[in-house]
Amino acid sequence: MANACLDFFYEFASTYSYPAAMRIEAVAAAAGVTVRWRPFLLGPIFAEAGWTTSPFNLIPAKGRNMWRDLERTTAAMGLPFRRPDPFPQNSLLAARVATALPDDGRRAAFSTEVYRAEFGEGLAIADPEVLGAILKRIGVEPAPLVVAAASETVKQALRATTDEAKAKGLFGAPSIVTADGELFWGNDRIEQAVAWATRLGSHQGLSE
Amino acid sequence: MANACLDFFYEFASTYSYPAAMRIEAVAAAAGVTVRWRPFLLGPIFAEAGWTTSPFNLIPAKGRNMWRDLERTTAAMGLPFRRPDPFPQNSLLAARVATALPDDGRRAAFSTEVYRAEFGEGLAIADPEVLGAILKRIGVEPAPLVVAAASETVKQALRATTDEAKAKGLFGAPSIVTADGELFWGNDRIEQAVAWATRLGSHQGLSE
Repeated sequence: MANACLDFFYEFASTYSYPAAMRIEAVAAAAGVTVRWRPFLLGPIFAEAGWTTSPFNLIPAKGRNMWRDLERTTAAMGLPFRRPDPFPQNSLLAARVATALPDDGRRAAFSTEVYRAEFGEGLAIADPEVLGAILKRIGVEPAPLVVAAASETVKQALRATTDEAKAKGLFGAPSIVTADGELFWGNDRIEQAVAWATRLGSHQGLSE
Repeated sequence: MANACLDFFYEFASTYSYPAAMRIEAVAAAAGVTVRWRPFLLGPIFAEAGWTTSPFNLIPAKGRNMWRDLERTTAAMGLPFRRPDPFPQNSLLAARVATALPDDGRRAAFSTEVYRAEFGEGLAIADPEVLGAILKRIGVEPAPLVVAAASETVKQALRATTDEAKAKGLFGAPSIVTADGELFWGNDRIEQAVAWATRLGSHQGLSE
């Protein structure tokens, strides 16, 4: 049977990407599904909708509910929570570093640590020192990574992922896309996306 | 112990209010929680955000995902699904009739039947004949209800519910508010809202 996989599209400034990043590997692994970690930028997609900041800032009542809901969600998961200030954080450098890292466990480890720093400790994720400390913690030498993150190759790769996200119909984060292009939006849809990927894996395994 | 209850705020034009209305009584009853059915209008709240139609129409990618997600959600629940045309439907008359009905089971019965007609059969819920047929089906004589629905008392009651929803921080539907004012947004939050109401019921029952 083909190994089922899914693409996990996440944005470092996105609030619900935090709980999603913290649990997606466990949910997928339990079903034998492989997660591809796909950092992208929501900014260019939001800009096309005419938004210059997060919709959670544009609609105050929606924002108030989101923060409270995120507090409940992280508490239920036993995750630390601290509201970043300012919100949203500038996520460009973190997204480039994540893109520069290979998706062999190190990108996932870096990404979950960035989310914990941002939404668990309230640290500034645009600060190269914060990201450098995270890289060291996961066993990656920071200096070459920061150079790579500033390279045209990585910048172009991140733009390509963002373009691909848009082409797949993404309008928010986190989003999950299965191999057949089915889109699932939000931390609340991880289980359904994994179940979809599993069924797809079985179909792919049929002798047809 | 005090009987735990929650307020279920729903809008007849709202897509996710359909699956929510179809399952909230069962989820609440299993936990011994009473549901108060609170029809309201999102239009005045959306208008304050500067929106003249549903955000699902304003942001096409978000709308496409919503319709697909609703299709998956209703299929998983074994509910019929048909996309209403036009969307959103004019929900004013249905909201007034629901407001005119007593919340003794008849309002819930009417409301779930309206959702089934709208999102299961694609019927026009602004059509008095469609609503009249539903009233007959649930054992209510339509004529007096239609008169009551047009009364100043009912119009004022619906405006008051909408004002109350806004004051409680609602920005979308369905939304659930527990006795202590905790807000839960969306079909995805029914279980958490019911669990919250249950814990609250226990606290209220403590001899303090």
